[in-house]
Amino acid sequence: MAVSDNLLVALVQERNQGAAEANLSLIEQRVAEAAARGARLVLLQELHNAAYFCQHQNVREFEQAEAIPGPSTERLGRLAKAHGVVIVGSLFERRGAGLYHNTAVVFETDGSIAGKYRKMHIPDDPGFNEKFYFTPGDLGFHPIDTSVGRLGVLVCWDQWYPEGARLMALAGADMLLYPTAIGWDPDDDQAEKDRQRNAWILSHRGHAVANGLPVLSCNRIGHEPSPIGASGIDFWGSSHVLGPQGEILAEAGTSAPELLMAEVDMQRSEHVRRIWPFLRDRRIDAYGDLLKRYRD
Amino acid sequence: MAVSDNLLVALVQERNQGAAEANLSLIEQRVAEAAARGARLVLLQELHNAAYFCQHQNVREFEQAEAIPGPSTERLGRLAKAHGVVIVGSLFERRGAGLYHNTAVVFETDGSIAGKYRKMHIPDDPGFNEKFYFTPGDLGFHPIDTSVGRLGVLVCWDQWYPEGARLMALAGADMLLYPTAIGWDPDDDQAEKDRQRNAWILSHRGHAVANGLPVLSCNRIGHEPSPIGASGIDFWGSSHVLGPQGEILAEAGTSAPELLMAEVDMQRSEHVRRIWPFLRDRRIDAYGDLLKRYRD
Repeated sequence: MAVSDNLLVALVQERNQGAAEANLSLIEQRVAEAAARGARLVLLQELHNAAYFCQHQNVREFEQAEAIPGPSTERLGRLAKAHGVVIVGSLFERRGAGLYHNTAVVFETDGSIAGKYRKMHIPDDPGFNEKFYFTPGDLGFHPIDTSVGRLGVLVCWDQWYPEGARLMALAGADMLLYPTAIGWDPDDDQAEKDRQRNAWILSHRGHAVANGLPVLSCNRIGHEPSPIGASGIDFWGSSHVLGPQGEILAEAGTSAPELLMAEVDMQRSEHVRRIWPFLRDRRIDAYGDLLKRYRD
Repeated sequence: MAVSDNLLVALVQERNQGAAEANLSLIEQRVAEAAARGARLVLLQELHNAAYFCQHQNVREFEQAEAIPGPSTERLGRLAKAHGVVIVGSLFERRGAGLYHNTAVVFETDGSIAGKYRKMHIPDDPGFNEKFYFTPGDLGFHPIDTSVGRLGVLVCWDQWYPEGARLMALAGADMLLYPTAIGWDPDDDQAEKDRQRNAWILSHRGHAVANGLPVLSCNRIGHEPSPIGASGIDFWGSSHVLGPQGEILAEAGTSAPELLMAEVDMQRSEHVRRIWPFLRDRRIDAYGDLLKRYRD
């Protein structure tokens, strides 16, 4: 895998446009802009084709799911080829009747599908009813080889699990990438909102440090109303690009669409892991209980 | 285990005083002061009896190691009893001829030893020759029950490993505690120094978030010269107390001794883990490769 020294990456932080056609059309504009500015890797937000529909449980939402490959992967593949960029997308996958996944798809610069990752950790909280829609992934934690490096693609709720990040690092990932959809409950007070947004960024920064890897996280923004009369969600944006010591290379705001771009030094991990060689000293002889639910 | 709602904790960030007697004498003053101000738990820095002797490899340094129990544990036990506080100390343990450990010892308010933890991950870098002195711990990752809660005690280099923090959390730890000795190479430039100190704090904050636990980390400060003519180490202090969303409750400076005190809400983890129940969704069926050195 040839990994260039400096990789210009772009994250498309966007507001829901109301329908798949409008969202994909906007994504096409943003990817074109990113490519024109020199980006070679574009990360999209989680479930970018639609509103975050998991605010309620409604069987009609399954109608927007698609096979992979399918219409959206064909369109995103054409987009990747047209601009010669690697794209990481996030789709509602219909695998079979009554079997759906939250799936990230990586497109190579020739338009082909380089690989896919099915979200392994599935949340279920008020406003985030994902266990109703998504079967937990069964592809495991495997990075995807591309022309810009070996990509450790994970999805949103996975971001809270050091285990997923570590497994990607152990499989030789060159960076970690998280399409996400996370926001505030408008009823929470400002202090709690700040703690939550900060915790989310801290979790990514922690993965960067623990694994000596760059981390990219792309989140949506804007208020999306609740279909069932709850308070809705204020997606907090804050998409970011981190270096392998957890340092912030670029960070988007909390209230507006943004094409966030940053240059990632792909040789920096090699240096950082030489001065802090954490992988050398893991106590694999004493980690067995990580495979337990709880040590009680 | 009775866990009080609010626990006042104290961290003794100190400069090396040159000899065990002087260091322990200073610790006695600081613990008395902490107890007088209401602290019920006191965390000391790593290897607090001496200079950080691992800057060189010299067999004479083994002479300062002690059995556990031994003179230092007796003295610290008396101190805990005198003030009715739980103390977490850090000693150079002589277990047998040619067999030494870097061991944290927890003292109960009655002066007894509540338990000990032998540092599991051992670093070895220029200026930090710990593999010469310390056999990696063989007690595993087990929290220690005390009257102020179940303490997940880890030591310094362990701080870079999400695995250790997670194993403590899975065993029901109420908080994580890290005695540490980490500092700058004076020859590094300011940007690298900033990245390193920030990465160290980020790693602790990441553990707090991932596990929904408070984290206490106590570091030494001051320049300690190299016994072999290298540049020495500028220990960066920055001892800190974190809440279970990674929020900073208290943080010491980088250049002076400090008795850092903070009140920790011991019921907060219960709340945080209800809104973000990460332990619920761990994919223990897919974590097997965490027990591998590398997935190649």
